[in-house]
Order: sequence, then C-alpha cells, then structure tokens
Amino acid sequence: MPYRAPVPEITFCLDHVVGYSRVTETERFADATPETVSALLTEAGRICEEVLAPLNRAGDLHPAKLENGVVRTSPGFADGYRAIAEAGFAAITADPAYGGLGLPQTVATAVNEMMGSACLSLELNPLMTQGQIEALEHHASDEIKALYLPKLTSGEWCGTMNLTEPQAGSDVGALKTKAEPNGDGTYAITGQKIYISWGDNDFTENVCHLVLARLPDGKPGTKGISLFLVPKRIPEADGTPGVANSLKVVGLEHKLGLHGSPTCVMQYDGATGWLVGEPHGGIAAMFTMMNNARLGVGVHGLSIAEAATQHALAYAADRVQGRSPIENGTGTILDHADVRRMLTGMKAETFAVRALALDLAVSIDLANATGDTAMAARAAFLTPICKAYGTDTGISVADTGIQVHGGMGFIEETGAAQFYRDGRVAAIYEGTNGIQAMDLTGRKMMDGGAAAFAVIDEIEAEAKAAGARGELLAATAAELLAATERMVALDLNDRFAGAVAYQHAFALTLGGLYHLRAALAEGEGPRTRLAQSFMARQMAAVPGLLAEAGLGAADLYALSAEDLVA
Amino acid sequence: MPYRAPVPEITFCLDHVVGYSRVTETERFADATPETVSALLTEAGRICEEVLAPLNRAGDLHPAKLENGVVRTSPGFADGYRAIAEAGFAAITADPAYGGLGLPQTVATAVNEMMGSACLSLELNPLMTQGQIEALEHHASDEIKALYLPKLTSGEWCGTMNLTEPQAGSDVGALKTKAEPNGDGTYAITGQKIYISWGDNDFTENVCHLVLARLPDGKPGTKGISLFLVPKRIPEADGTPGVANSLKVVGLEHKLGLHGSPTCVMQYDGATGWLVGEPHGGIAAMFTMMNNARLGVGVHGLSIAEAATQHALAYAADRVQGRSPIENGTGTILDHADVRRMLTGMKAETFAVRALALDLAVSIDLANATGDTAMAARAAFLTPICKAYGTDTGISVADTGIQVHGGMGFIEETGAAQFYRDGRVAAIYEGTNGIQAMDLTGRKMMDGGAAAFAVIDEIEAEAKAAGARGELLAATAAELLAATERMVALDLNDRFAGAVAYQHAFALTLGGLYHLRAALAEGEGPRTRLAQSFMARQMAAVPGLLAEAGLGAADLYALSAEDLVA
Repeated sequence: MPYRAPVPEITFCLDHVVGYSRVTETERFADATPETVSALLTEAGRICEEVLAPLNRAGDLHPAKLENGVVRTSPGFADGYRAIAEAGFAAITADPAYGGLGLPQTVATAVNEMMGSACLSLELNPLMTQGQIEALEHHASDEIKALYLPKLTSGEWCGTMNLTEPQAGSDVGALKTKAEPNGDGTYAITGQKIYISWGDNDFTENVCHLVLARLPDGKPGTKGISLFLVPKRIPEADGTPGVANSLKVVGLEHKLGLHGSPTCVMQYDGATGWLVGEPHGGIAAMFTMMNNARLGVGVHGLSIAEAATQHALAYAADRVQGRSPIENGTGTILDHADVRRMLTGMKAETFAVRALALDLAVSIDLANATGDTAMAARAAFLTPICKAYGTDTGISVADTGIQVHGGMGFIEETGAAQFYRDGRVAAIYEGTNGIQAMDLTGRKMMDGGAAAFAVIDEIEAEAKAAGARGELLAATAAELLAATERMVALDLNDRFAGAVAYQHAFALTLGGLYHLRAALAEGEGPRTRLAQSFMARQMAAVPGLLAEAGLGAADLYALSAEDLVA
Repeated sequence: MPYRAPVPEITFCLDHVVGYSRVTETERFADATPETVSALLTEAGRICEEVLAPLNRAGDLHPAKLENGVVRTSPGFADGYRAIAEAGFAAITADPAYGGLGLPQTVATAVNEMMGSACLSLELNPLMTQGQIEALEHHASDEIKALYLPKLTSGEWCGTMNLTEPQAGSDVGALKTKAEPNGDGTYAITGQKIYISWGDNDFTENVCHLVLARLPDGKPGTKGISLFLVPKRIPEADGTPGVANSLKVVGLEHKLGLHGSPTCVMQYDGATGWLVGEPHGGIAAMFTMMNNARLGVGVHGLSIAEAATQHALAYAADRVQGRSPIENGTGTILDHADVRRMLTGMKAETFAVRALALDLAVSIDLANATGDTAMAARAAFLTPICKAYGTDTGISVADTGIQVHGGMGFIEETGAAQFYRDGRVAAIYEGTNGIQAMDLTGRKMMDGGAAAFAVIDEIEAEAKAAGARGELLAATAAELLAATERMVALDLNDRFAGAVAYQHAFALTLGGLYHLRAALAEGEGPRTRLAQSFMARQMAAVPGLLAEAGLGAADLYALSAEDLVA
C-alpha cells in the first residue's frame, strides 16, 4: 500500500505538542512561520509519496553494486536524488549565504522523517550531506566554505562521514589513519575506513569525505585526532570537479537491510585533504555534527515506525479472518482485541517518537537561535534518549508489523519484512544504543543530574497541572526522579549496568508527557484515547525498568567471563 | 564460530531442573535411563555439530529452488538429511513396532533443539515427519500404519502438514479444499494449500501430505473438516513408491529467513487421498499433532537463542574495543557492563526457555505413560506459553546478538543476522503468538483456571520452601495468582486484550522457578549467579506485564477502526 506523508500529524505535533511557535518567535527563525512550514512540508510530503516511496522496493531487490571500482546505484535512485537536490532537502538548515534555506532543524527533522519512511536507503545520502554542511559551516575556513558549500547545498555534490576503522568502532580514539603535511597547506591522508554510508555514487559530480585522521604529532587516543575534508575529485578554483583524488571504494558490505545504500570500505592512499577546524580538534568538530546526526538516526526509527504502522493498518483493515468478536465490527482482523492492541501500540509509540524527535529539534533550534545554555543542555540530554528510543521503537514497531501480517509478514513481497531489516541498523550506527545509554548516564550527568532533573521537573509540573488526567504521569515522574537521584549516586560502571533500562524508562515517561499534551489540546477524541492507552500499556513497563536501572553491576560481574563463555 | 552442542547443559536441566527421572520411573520409558539418554544426546550432538551446522549458511545463501515443477534443495541438504534419517531423528518417539526408537518426547525435544541450532531450515523437515508419525499412530487404520510408518521412521519418506489456504490461516475453519469419495474407499482431494514447509524435496523417495479438506457432507467451519493422507507417489502394496499422484508444487515463497526450507504452494487436482481418523474429525486429529508441533516450534526459539548466544559470546570474547572499565578484565568488550548485561540476559533467558520446553516435554511423557489427566492438563496449559515465550525469546536473543556485534551484526557474513531472520517466523507459524495467548486465556482457562492455579501453586510452594532465595519468586507467584483470578473473571475478549502480556508474565515466573531449581541444585556457582541476575532483571518486567494483563479491552475499542486507520 502506498506511503502517505503524515503532514497533518506532524503539524499537530508542532503546534500542540512541542511548542514550535517558540521557534518562530526568535529573530533568527521569524520567517519560518507555521504557515510557511506547513506549505513546505506539504510539498515535501508530495515528493516523498510520489517520487521516493516507489523506489524503496527496487532498492531492496537491486542493491548498489561495485563494478570495476565504480558504485552503481539502485534503479531510479539517480532520479530520486535529483528530486531531493532540487527540493533542497540536504540544505534545509544551511546558511542562505551559501544557497541554504536557513530554516530550523525542526523542519529538517520533519522532512527527514518523510524521506526516511519513503526510502530510507536513499535518505541516508542527504542526511550525511546535512551533517557535512553543518560541520563545514562551523569549522571550515572561508575558502573551503566558499568553494564547497554552494555545491553541497545545491546537491551537485554530496558528503560523507568517515570515522570507523576495523579496530576503531565505538572506540574511535583507536583509529590509525594518518595525515601527513604536504607542505602546501594540504595533507596526505592514508588509511582504511569502513561502514561509510554512500561512500560513492553514480549521480553526483563529486563526493566530499570528512575523514578523521591523526597528524604526525597527534597523541594516541581521541585527543590526537583531526578532521579533514577529502574530496573524490579535487575541485578547481571555479568549482569544477578536477582530477581524481587518491582514494577509492574497495568493497561494499552485504547487509541485512538498507540494500539501496552502498556501505563502503574506503581506501585512502595519500589522498589530498584539507584540515577542518583546529589540529587535534577533530573529535570536537565531529561532535558538533554527531549530535544532529544522532537526532537524524533517531528519526530513522521514526520513519520506519510510521511506514510500518501505515502498512500494517492497511493490511489489517483489509484482511478478513475468523468471526468478529464484537458487534458492528468491520469484519476484518481489526476487530480482534490482540490485533488492536498491536496496532494501537504501534500508533501510540510512533506518536511518542515523533514528538520526542521534534521536541529535541525545537530545543536545538531555540539553543542555536538564542544562545540559551539551559536549552542547549536540554537538547544534549534528550539526544541519546531520542536516538535510542527512536531506533528501538522503529525495530519493535516493524517487528509488530510483521506479526500483524501473520504468515504474510515473513514473505518478502509483502514489504513488512523490509522495514524490519532496514530499521535494524539504526540501533547500531551513530553510536550503538548501549553507547547512547552510557552517554546519557555518564557524560550527560556530569552536571550532577541537573539537565535530567530539569526535564523531570517539566514533566511533573505539567502532569500536576493537568489534574486527574496527569495523575499517572506525575507518579511516574516522581519515580523517575527518585531513580535519577539513585543513578547519579552510583559509580559510572554501576550506572552503565542499568543505563539502557533507565534510558528506556525516561523515554516512555517523556512519551507520556507528549501524549498528555495532545490529549489536553484535543479535549476529547482519538488522540486522547490513544494517550490513555499509551499510559495504561506502554508506561506500565516503567517501574520494572527503573528497578533494573538501579541494580548496579555486581550481578553482571559476579559471573566471570569464563562462566559466561563456558 | 562453530556450533557446540550443549549436551552438558541439557543433561543438567534434565537431571536437576525438570525431574526427568520421573519419566524413567514409568513402565513405558523404563529403558530410557539417564545414561542411555545421555549417550544418545552425545551422539546426536556430534552429528549436529559435524554434519548439520556446516550446512546452515549454504542454505541461507542458496535457497531451495523450483525448477520445472521440481524442488531443488540447498547444497549439502541431501547429505544432512541422510544423516538425520540414519540416526532416526524423525522417529525418536515412534513406536518400535514400526521402526521407531520408542523414546520419550523429552529426548526428541533435546535432539530437536540441537538440530535446530545447527540448521533450522533442515530441522523443519524431520519435525514435520515426527508430527505426521504421531498423527498416523493415533488416527490411521492398521493398513495405513503398516504401509507408511516404516517408511517414515526410516526416513525413506517424509511428511508434511497442509492446513493453511489463502483465506484460511488462523481461521482454519474457512478452508475450501474438497474431498470427494472415489467409491473405492479413497477420496479425490482438490484445492490449494499455502505455507507448506518442505512440501517437496529431491532427497526422499516419497513425500506424504496430511491434508485438511471438507467432505461433501461436511458442515461449514471446523466441524466439517476431515484429515487425509495424500502421498506424492501412490505406494504399491509392497511399499515401493508407485505412480505420481495428482498434486504439485506450484510455487515457493521468498522469505525473510529459513531460505533452505522450501515453503510451498501446493495444488491438489483430484489427488488420491486416504481418510485418517473419523469423517469430520480432522480438527481433533490435527490437534493431537499440533500440540507437539507447538512444543516443536517453541524449541525453534530455543535453538535460535542457544546458537545466537554462543555466537555472540564468541565474538565478544574476541573483540577488543575501548579501555577496560574493570581491573583484571579480559581486555575484550566482555568487560563492559552493558555488553555483559546483554550476554547475561541472553544466557539467562535461553536457560529459561530450555527448561520450559523440557518441563513441558516431561509432562507430556508422564501424561502419555501414566494416563494422569492432571499431568495432561498441565502439559496443555504449558504448551502455548512454551510456544510463545520460546519463539519470542529466540527473536529477542537473536536481536540482542546483533547488538553485541555492533556494526558487524548488520553484515550478513557475520551470521548474527541469519539467526534474526530465520527465527522470526517461529512467532507466527503453528498459530501466531497472539493465537497462543488466546488459547492460554481462553480454552486453557475453560476449567476456571484450575490448570493455571495448579502450576502457580507449584511455583509458590517451591519458592517458599527455598526460604530467602525464593522470596522474590514467591512474591511474584502471589502477584501472578491474583492476576489469574482477575483474568478468569473477565469476559473472553477482555482477557484477549491482556493475553500476550499475561502469557509473557507467566513464562518469566516459570523461568524464575527453573532458575531457582538450578541454584538450589548447585548451591553456589555460576548457575546460582545467573539465577540471581534473571530474577533481578528479567523478572522485573512481571508486575508491569500483569498490570497490562488485567486492563481489559475498553481502551482498545475506544479508538474506532476509523481512528486507527486515519
């Protein structure tokens, strides 16, 4: 069944759940009025429905291929990319001085959601470019900006991120790629990078790689890493892509999903690169980009959840099976309580993930537009929660979508299985969800829990103000507060033993807040009823998760490594 | 990394967790002593490790194909099947009078686990034959038994189950396949069946289909369905496979996983069939077979969980990444608390699933050997729990296994993704896990909850007898008891709205019982520590699940079908 862009749902969320109007009230984003945004989202939704969604299955069936060192992309992807480039989807937040649209991250987040639902394999390409534009705007020299940014915002060129090496994944500080000064201000980059999404393609003039590498005087570990811009073709001063650089794609991975996205092994053999940011300042520069990338990957989960939910609902509303257990039912499997439970849960969690992603995006925009440090801390705190809950939910909703389909769910032609396969990696890349949880309970609590307490206060205040409707949420927020106090009192490694559970509990409590806001905005209606179901069912898991969150690591280390492996 | 058959673990479970000695104490199974069983399992384990496990990846990469109406199986599967046939793995429980081994279901369950871990695609073949042998032993005429059973037990022929039709999945009563009397005691079977596992192959002389069809005077619904034996080749009186019957494979499904298992669309065009059991008694006959098949599919989850756990542990014990957070660690990712949490959980849940499957098998054996109706009721009650918890755990453990691998988990060559894909269908076939939950809270509580209360009493009594060690389990059992009392007081459809949550909570509580037994048997040691972790972490979810179990269906139907689909 065809994908329908949920523009009304997104608009409701912006207007009534995440307080988007606060963004319009800033000087920087005064032009991004709700009306402007709504018109843009409608047009973006149309492109996603009509141009991108039809490519999704072809990308799965006909993976990108490496032929004689050249990446051949899936059928139709070049046309899809052209539509993305023309609409400026890689440049939504980019500086208008360089051809960007200058719109808030919130708008980019909504567009990314729709692109990802329509064709996640292809969406990864502009997502990477968005991150690269942001990194260059913050850290590159004026010369580099002037040369590269117009090409990236127009979509003539696209960008990638090169962090991982075989021995350096979660531990990026272990990387071995070297950068040697050439004496002319450029550097010779040598090394191998793996898992490079869209490391090459056959539809852009140039591909610009942001590569983490170590200078000769770089210390071991993360403090000795620098960031370099390494283009596939070395641009002439007038912006024409010049001679080929000394880099190549040496392999593509065979993956569980996202077959349309070429995941490359890149080899750099003394390739010419330009330093971006300070020497040895690569990690800091990468982090600018990574926080938004983590939001972007959280949105992958949202994209999959929305698409899988639409797909399963359409199937259920059509599938006749068994006697209807209710009077005046539809006669389809929608009438069955357990099928309803699955679909209602899919819808309720998709709502919560969308609201969390947009809430985080609004916080980013407000922090950027006003310089409000509390807002920046709020955004930083929500980032790992959004990444992990978004992607976990994408996977679980796709899993439930298969279950709704019964036997048909296991058959590839149905399409339900592709969501399950495509969405799986999102819990891994941009930092595994375990790494997110460690970030949340480690780095993001180095303030003694202040950012966490501020968000919990917000939840508790709104829940209490809502009276009877907010009672359950207020009680949950109080439990979350107590669990947070326990968490900050623990040693780091004891926190990490409960970090994933804590992260999940926090996300569900936030989900309760968003559902409450929707219910309060609506009064009585389907959103209110969906909110009640979420609070009764999904939030029932919170106390158990918080109990696990506080356990510490003792039970885990009581079993020796030998005990486990034996 | 190569699969290692966990024979010591299975033996521990038989001896110290599920009370296998009670089976040996019966007259019927007096010869199946622990020593005999242990020797048999050791040899079976060797075959699984050496012959079957090497086929698993080839089956995934080179799916069974349909060429000119003939099924060509994956490379090496014919050899694998020969080893299975020679070892008698399809005939473990079969009557020695017809060439069976006459051993308990418990032994078959243990062997099936190992076959499934080694190569689940191929294991499905003997599992189907096991079910067919059982159905024929119970319901077929002496002539059919004499002709077919020796061929099935020897593995010269194999068997299938044909229930599903496009419009008749969970609602088997909607089937349209017809059976017309030929006047000579045989019937002409006409219709199409889908999702027929191993509907054909290129390594057995004959394939015997058990087909549900409706006689001319069969009422609509399940009460008008009869069971027929419809062989691919019509046997001569001396047992040679004779002329081809009027049936064929018209298509194979393209599936998410289990590529080595041909899932057939079967067309019957007036094929000659023999009635098995009474006219219109097909459902009853099928149910005999289906209960054990449900145990068999629950074991699929166990097989996947065990294999995925071994695989992830081997990876983690080898993968160096990041600084070790502990003193005297291994230097691998095993040192990290969150990685430990994942692996410990995988191991603890795999243990619980194995114990549940073997506990159920022991109950089946005791009921069969003694005619004890309480034991039969216990087995019937545990069956849906085992099917659903086993398969859900297989999927979640395989999912966690991918996560342990990080980026490598998404790469097909690693093998982690295959477990995830292969295991997914187990939550669907033999009755979806939602159907299992409806069976548990509906049919299996038609006794007013007596079977449920009996199991809970058992848990509570043992937990209390264990003193401090059993405190948490005793408290959980008390909550489960209260939830069960609430459940039986609900209308059916209100039960169904919480049935999946209830089923999961019951399984986790049983898991606590098994872990407690292991800990009590061991005293102090790794099993005891694993038990403590299971109780603290996995069982923390029980109260939330029981809260959802009692919610009723009101919140689900408050949202209209239009609200959901909108």
